[in-house]
Amino acid sequence: MKKIKAQNISKKSFCAFGDILDINGSPDKLINAGFCERYNDRAKLEFTNGKAGISIFHAKVRKLPYKFDMLERHPEGSQAFLPLSSNPFLVIVAKNNTKNEPHEPQAFITAPSQGINIHRNIWHGVLTPLNSPGIFAVIDRIGPGDNLEEYFLSEKFEVELY
Amino acid sequence: MKKIKAQNISKKSFCAFGDILDINGSPDKLINAGFCERYNDRAKLEFTNGKAGISIFHAKVRKLPYKFDMLERHPEGSQAFLPLSSNPFLVIVAKNNTKNEPHEPQAFITAPSQGINIHRNIWHGVLTPLNSPGIFAVIDRIGPGDNLEEYFLSEKFEVELY
Repeated sequence: MKKIKAQNISKKSFCAFGDILDINGSPDKLINAGFCERYNDRAKLEFTNGKAGISIFHAKVRKLPYKFDMLERHPEGSQAFLPLSSNPFLVIVAKNNTKNEPHEPQAFITAPSQGINIHRNIWHGVLTPLNSPGIFAVIDRIGPGDNLEEYFLSEKFEVELY
Repeated sequence: MKKIKAQNISKKSFCAFGDILDINGSPDKLINAGFCERYNDRAKLEFTNGKAGISIFHAKVRKLPYKFDMLERHPEGSQAFLPLSSNPFLVIVAKNNTKNEPHEPQAFITAPSQGINIHRNIWHGVLTPLNSPGIFAVIDRIGPGDNLEEYFLSEKFEVELY
């Protein structure tokens, strides 16, 4: 079993996989007579053969160390995970190798009140909240077909805190 | 000054204005080997002359009783508010009268870990969190032009708890 350390997510470390959705940096616009900051259009949404939809996911809470042996990707769409809580959660992603398989999985822990958007066709783990209630709004492709590719790794990985 | 009472939001009371995004009812699908419930495609998204985007709003926290004299609507798109916290928030909406003006504003309080989607061209108040941090993911139209109509009421309204 291979062990990997979950790191605090950062724009630099995550940009190859997706977008971080939070209030870091400067707002693009002040709205509502100055009462609200708008950080505009922060996710690279991409949907083929379908359209954007909002679904709610309710996932079982996991504990660290966390073991996994499967990664998945969605060839036809990006997928944003927006926690309906302020709780950080675990994000597992991997690059694609020349054999079109995931390799060298990486694990990240989000900050409080932060969402992420995983780009189209990026290998990632299943939704893994670390605290109750594990409820997320998910912005992904609504359309025909499965849009799901799963890959079972030849050995298990274990994620532990950095 | 007119007073209105904020009611707990319900599907029945809110359906003329938008969608409630939560885990009430039965999930449409179990995914991730049974570890995650998917409540699928729960928002009526509608965007003309543009596309869906994810923005982050950071709004000043308000207190009840809350006074307002302005409502707004977006002719070219729906707008979903997904709190990146479990905190309930205040939602003000109004029907459109025969003069094409908002009338009889209504106020609702959401439940914990619940989002809403306001339908295209529905009169609504500005984003009003009642607790810190006031951070929301907002799914709305990204496109050219203002897409904003504001209406200043002839008298102030005050929202108080039911």
